[in-house]
Amino acid sequence: MATKYLLPEDRLPTAWYNIVPDLPEPPAPPLNPATGQPAGPEDLAAIFPMDLIMQEVSAEPRIDIPEEIQEIYKLWRPTPMLRAYRWEKALGTPAKIFYKYEGVSPAGSHKPNTSVPQAWYNKKAGINKLSTETGAGQWGSALALATQFFDMECLVYMVKVSYHQKPYRRSMIHLWGAEVIPSPSDTTASGRAILAGDPESPGSLGIAISEAVEIAATRDDTNYSLGSVLNHVLLHQTVIGQECLAQMELADAYPDVVIACVGGGSNFAGIAFPFIGEKVKHGKDVRIIASEPAACPTLTRGIYAFDYGDTAKLTPIVKMHTLGHDFVPPGIHAGGLRYHGMSPLVSLAKEHGLIEAEALPQTECFEAAVQFARTEGIIPAPESSHALASVVRVANECKESGDEKTILFNLSGHGHFDMAAYDAYLSGNLEDYAYPEEKIKAAMKNLPKVG
Amino acid sequence: MATKYLLPEDRLPTAWYNIVPDLPEPPAPPLNPATGQPAGPEDLAAIFPMDLIMQEVSAEPRIDIPEEIQEIYKLWRPTPMLRAYRWEKALGTPAKIFYKYEGVSPAGSHKPNTSVPQAWYNKKAGINKLSTETGAGQWGSALALATQFFDMECLVYMVKVSYHQKPYRRSMIHLWGAEVIPSPSDTTASGRAILAGDPESPGSLGIAISEAVEIAATRDDTNYSLGSVLNHVLLHQTVIGQECLAQMELADAYPDVVIACVGGGSNFAGIAFPFIGEKVKHGKDVRIIASEPAACPTLTRGIYAFDYGDTAKLTPIVKMHTLGHDFVPPGIHAGGLRYHGMSPLVSLAKEHGLIEAEALPQTECFEAAVQFARTEGIIPAPESSHALASVVRVANECKESGDEKTILFNLSGHGHFDMAAYDAYLSGNLEDYAYPEEKIKAAMKNLPKVG
Repeated sequence: MATKYLLPEDRLPTAWYNIVPDLPEPPAPPLNPATGQPAGPEDLAAIFPMDLIMQEVSAEPRIDIPEEIQEIYKLWRPTPMLRAYRWEKALGTPAKIFYKYEGVSPAGSHKPNTSVPQAWYNKKAGINKLSTETGAGQWGSALALATQFFDMECLVYMVKVSYHQKPYRRSMIHLWGAEVIPSPSDTTASGRAILAGDPESPGSLGIAISEAVEIAATRDDTNYSLGSVLNHVLLHQTVIGQECLAQMELADAYPDVVIACVGGGSNFAGIAFPFIGEKVKHGKDVRIIASEPAACPTLTRGIYAFDYGDTAKLTPIVKMHTLGHDFVPPGIHAGGLRYHGMSPLVSLAKEHGLIEAEALPQTECFEAAVQFARTEGIIPAPESSHALASVVRVANECKESGDEKTILFNLSGHGHFDMAAYDAYLSGNLEDYAYPEEKIKAAMKNLPKVG
Repeated sequence: MATKYLLPEDRLPTAWYNIVPDLPEPPAPPLNPATGQPAGPEDLAAIFPMDLIMQEVSAEPRIDIPEEIQEIYKLWRPTPMLRAYRWEKALGTPAKIFYKYEGVSPAGSHKPNTSVPQAWYNKKAGINKLSTETGAGQWGSALALATQFFDMECLVYMVKVSYHQKPYRRSMIHLWGAEVIPSPSDTTASGRAILAGDPESPGSLGIAISEAVEIAATRDDTNYSLGSVLNHVLLHQTVIGQECLAQMELADAYPDVVIACVGGGSNFAGIAFPFIGEKVKHGKDVRIIASEPAACPTLTRGIYAFDYGDTAKLTPIVKMHTLGHDFVPPGIHAGGLRYHGMSPLVSLAKEHGLIEAEALPQTECFEAAVQFARTEGIIPAPESSHALASVVRVANECKESGDEKTILFNLSGHGHFDMAAYDAYLSGNLEDYAYPEEKIKAAMKNLPKVG
């Protein structure tokens, strides 16, 4: 009985999959935050290298992965895809559950799939320092790892609540040679403005992005690197779904349902987009679910509109699902999902009915994660646990109906640096947050008047 | 260029390799701690199930792995073997360095290779509760995982210094449903005796073993489970080396040198014994190095004699290299290597010149580990870092001589729960301990008068 589906190295993807030509309409162009006019490549050149800008706006169906990046991918890729026999049994479901496990990367999540190419293209453009933000620390550690590989410097603004909740993610970033600053900080004008309004601000991804972008925009030697949301970031993550397509072939199966958690959209797009491509091009029917936190319900409760990607209005304005760039989500343990916006490509796929979304309270997510850890062994990251909770819902539907559906989900990372969250859950001290309606309503009033 | 050598599942070992028939003489029988006479299977039956006792004394060359255990192994096995191209380059060595990575198991080390069969054989014998000790927490978490798989209870005595240094290993053990008690504790007579002499005792593996054995010996419903040292434990770990033999074939190479860290001997034996078998049976020459901490130099400075496996003299007396069962090693971060004794089979191999040993100070080990983390990405466990330091020594010899040696080492686990140790090293606060000569001399005076 095969449990683990391992691809030989010679079946690794050699190109990234670009969903843009397979979507019913092209994505709306980003707007310059100062003028409200469409932003051209030159508007982005202050903080990104031209190769990544070209990927950001590309409509080519496939983009070759440079050989040097393919070599580094091999440190952890192909990642395993496994059948969760023991979890299926514990759930008492007739569903077949497969999971792709991205936690085998050195940083413990899918994030190095894009941090490595981003660092590589910057290095190629002569840039030796990158600034970035991080929530739970998964992205910050992934970029620290990648910049270390290419002898570059790295400056990480870490959302303050996570900085204190997850000291060892910080240590990991230090070990890989990067500098970490808790955000909001007094090192930037954006940070100082937030602190003036609320010295106790727990921070948010939106605020940390402002700080990192400000540094890159005001320093010639520094570029900015983003761990999710943007088209080129999602593009790099499509190695996940492409491997799954080949691994599903090895398993002689095909998913009826594909599930991933969603914050900015990168691990979700990584697994889902290649399956959307198969659906669009070859009519292969598949239900795709994006699982988001009830405390930050961007896809299910946000509106589809133009908005800033950050709190200080320094990033381009993009069309996406948003809760308002002023919205600071409650301090849930899934720090990587605490983002007011959504990838424009994921939002567009949602608008066209190619995917659906559901919002989950964190205790339901931890319940699923603990059951998974006790049956399959792996301890999921709090972010990934949202996907697990959705899997449980579908598996229970199958139990009711007797349907033997095939479910594939992305286990985007491990929870080795999130044990305090498990301690809280197991001791009954983890709370769910009420839907933050008033805060979202207030934030919605500040959307930019464009488009 | 292949980086990672992945075995297909159908090439996984189906039997464990037993080194006993390949050794120049049979191991000395263990002695009953009360009488000093050879201990028969019945002496061990109070704390072990008969299947494991039979494995402990077996002279069969191969012992089949039950199918249910093979299935669970597939959750993380085969583990990858990789070529460390980037580290080789950073070292400037002509040596080819391969590493087997056991950190992909759910518990993050090689330990589940034996915790799963131990739990399974106990369950089969009708036992529903296991007691054990743990140093750094790697073994305790591995046994918690395994007992959880079979719906058994688990009680873990964790060496006090590690209990406080590594709170999240504790959380991991809790998550997998086990109870953890810092050792020495007041829950056993052995623990109370130690605390009476030294209320501030940091604990040691020898003390924690006494507590766990006492519980198993005095409770009918509870058996004892050991994470290293014993013959059957080393036997289970030989899946590592057997996979390496097949993976070396895939790499079209064969090691000149095999290196692993050594505490009680289990990850070392796991990778080394199958290569000793090749040497003995087919004359394949290979140098094998056991890397131990300078603060607990059992193989390099201990004597080969009969001694107790624990501080309270509850375990059988075995012939091994020992620093004396009263010896409490300094509180180095490699908690899993803080053991006064050594596996009798590893000791016997050392006596017959089949392996050599070297002792390394912890700063040299962390220096190698940081360089490895910055080139290959993976963060090694402090225990494993001893193997890395030995690799660096051999790689530097090759650099001097121009020799293109092929080195294979066992990266027995990751350091995700040891970041505080890396913080200490990176901030310059990690100290090396002087060779604890006086403490060892004193402990040596208390060896049992037998044999």
